[in-house]
Amino acid sequence: LSDEVALGPGAEFDTIRALLARWGARAIGVGDDAATLSVARGDQLVVSVDSAVERRHFRPEWSTPREIGYRAVVAALSDLAAMAAIPTGILLAITLPDAWRAKLDELADGIAEGADTVRAPIIGGNMSGGTELAITTTVLGSAFAPLRRGGARVGDSVYVTGVLGGPAAALRSLEAGHGVGAHHERLKFPCPRVHEARWLAERGATAAIDISDGFIADLRHVAAASRVTIDVVGASVPHVDEVTLNTALSGGEEYELIVTTARAFDVEEFRARFGLLLTQVGRVTDGERAEVTLDGARVANISGHDHFSR
Amino acid sequence: LSDEVALGPGAEFDTIRALLARWGARAIGVGDDAATLSVARGDQLVVSVDSAVERRHFRPEWSTPREIGYRAVVAALSDLAAMAAIPTGILLAITLPDAWRAKLDELADGIAEGADTVRAPIIGGNMSGGTELAITTTVLGSAFAPLRRGGARVGDSVYVTGVLGGPAAALRSLEAGHGVGAHHERLKFPCPRVHEARWLAERGATAAIDISDGFIADLRHVAAASRVTIDVVGASVPHVDEVTLNTALSGGEEYELIVTTARAFDVEEFRARFGLLLTQVGRVTDGERAEVTLDGARVANISGHDHFSR
Repeated sequence: LSDEVALGPGAEFDTIRALLARWGARAIGVGDDAATLSVARGDQLVVSVDSAVERRHFRPEWSTPREIGYRAVVAALSDLAAMAAIPTGILLAITLPDAWRAKLDELADGIAEGADTVRAPIIGGNMSGGTELAITTTVLGSAFAPLRRGGARVGDSVYVTGVLGGPAAALRSLEAGHGVGAHHERLKFPCPRVHEARWLAERGATAAIDISDGFIADLRHVAAASRVTIDVVGASVPHVDEVTLNTALSGGEEYELIVTTARAFDVEEFRARFGLLLTQVGRVTDGERAEVTLDGARVANISGHDHFSR
Repeated sequence: LSDEVALGPGAEFDTIRALLARWGARAIGVGDDAATLSVARGDQLVVSVDSAVERRHFRPEWSTPREIGYRAVVAALSDLAAMAAIPTGILLAITLPDAWRAKLDELADGIAEGADTVRAPIIGGNMSGGTELAITTTVLGSAFAPLRRGGARVGDSVYVTGVLGGPAAALRSLEAGHGVGAHHERLKFPCPRVHEARWLAERGATAAIDISDGFIADLRHVAAASRVTIDVVGASVPHVDEVTLNTALSGGEEYELIVTTARAFDVEEFRARFGLLLTQVGRVTDGERAEVTLDGARVANISGHDHFSR
């Protein structure tokens, strides 16, 4: 327990002290009404908030407390990656039902592991009672030139990181009662693509988004924000063998990145650096509407992933 | 609906669009994976998160949706006031049960009015389903020298803003079935003391906290963080006639400020400026323990307020 953390008495504060003890040196500066953070001169502060709610975003029977804590943090960090920001701090607002109190240490460990993926300190938070577990994560980061959804231009190439469909395959296996299967890690412990995003931004990415709802659903946000048509070549999209292309294109919780660029990325250098595929999967064209087409046909029937609880 | 907000299709995004339409020009820059914000050169970013959970922090039968939205935002802003920070942006993570969907406009109006108290823009957020309404507010601010709890020194004077006990009196009236009574506004529409805090910080405040749990409970945090004993003179604490001193000292949700200072504040100038009392109520002494005493006796039996739902 840090010297900085000197809270008055009270059950709520005992819970906070227990969390902080578990987090150790990962939690810094906690104990004031608010946290403080320096932003590098010239950089923009980048901030996002994301909630993981019991039965909406996770099922207790499918996820351990450690996985729930980890994924809550990583889902939020993935939004910073999409902006090519360097994470600098995390705040956690936890609604903790009494029934979950015995699991607090495991949740805390998962949260800490999520923070560790980017070495960001936990700088504040809030504890509340409630009837359903909810972890709302606020992530703060810093970027000189944040990547946005609206920067795609006609003629740009569209790339995606990684191999899609792993989380969907694992989820399908779970739903079928076969356990989580071969793509366990991709579903349970996804990595926020923070370093990959910085690499891409430094090499001319014009727009980016992370895949949380599904490749097509998220690409549509890019098309809408950039007011362009984006043509996807289905055969070029890398996906795992266990699922069809359509499943891979609609599955959520991927936390891979979609990026556009006017140049070509050196995909071999990317693969060597990160051990991850980077694949060109489409182009930005001068369509009449802001939309996504797949192999030339307008995509209307692939719905976005409705989170883990679907 | 701002030109900047161009989201793809989907029910979740329809809800977000409805919120944004309601907020109008108050919501800026929403529609990317994260929001961006500039921090004035030399300033620290100050950030806090606070949750308002159904039946824990509010009762639907006692509070209108507008009040719930307003208070959720103001409770968070009050933490920025305690740090003497200027609010610069607000993010809202809302867990919205289906039963609350019809009340979204009213909630949004209350949230907007809360943001209006300090003219801070709404720069981001998150929508989720769930079984209980929860509003988690992240507030961002900027301060050159943030006030902290740990800055009180032996010999400092202790001041409090306003008149205590109004929220407790209103709550008691509600509980007795007499309606909310004379202190309606103090309970339902508290003001974050942002400008007052800046005034106090500029005139030598050494430590500050806002009263959310109760005067004594929150003063204990200052004593603990500053490692000092704080002596309170009971007769000097301004409180409303309807409640006893003990009730006024233990009632929460005040959102008034406790500040310490080595100098004396000009309480007349403060009153003229803000139309609000500023009263010296105690001193920081060189006790053996970090604790609070009331009229010379150690305070152990006044418990902190357990939020609105007690």
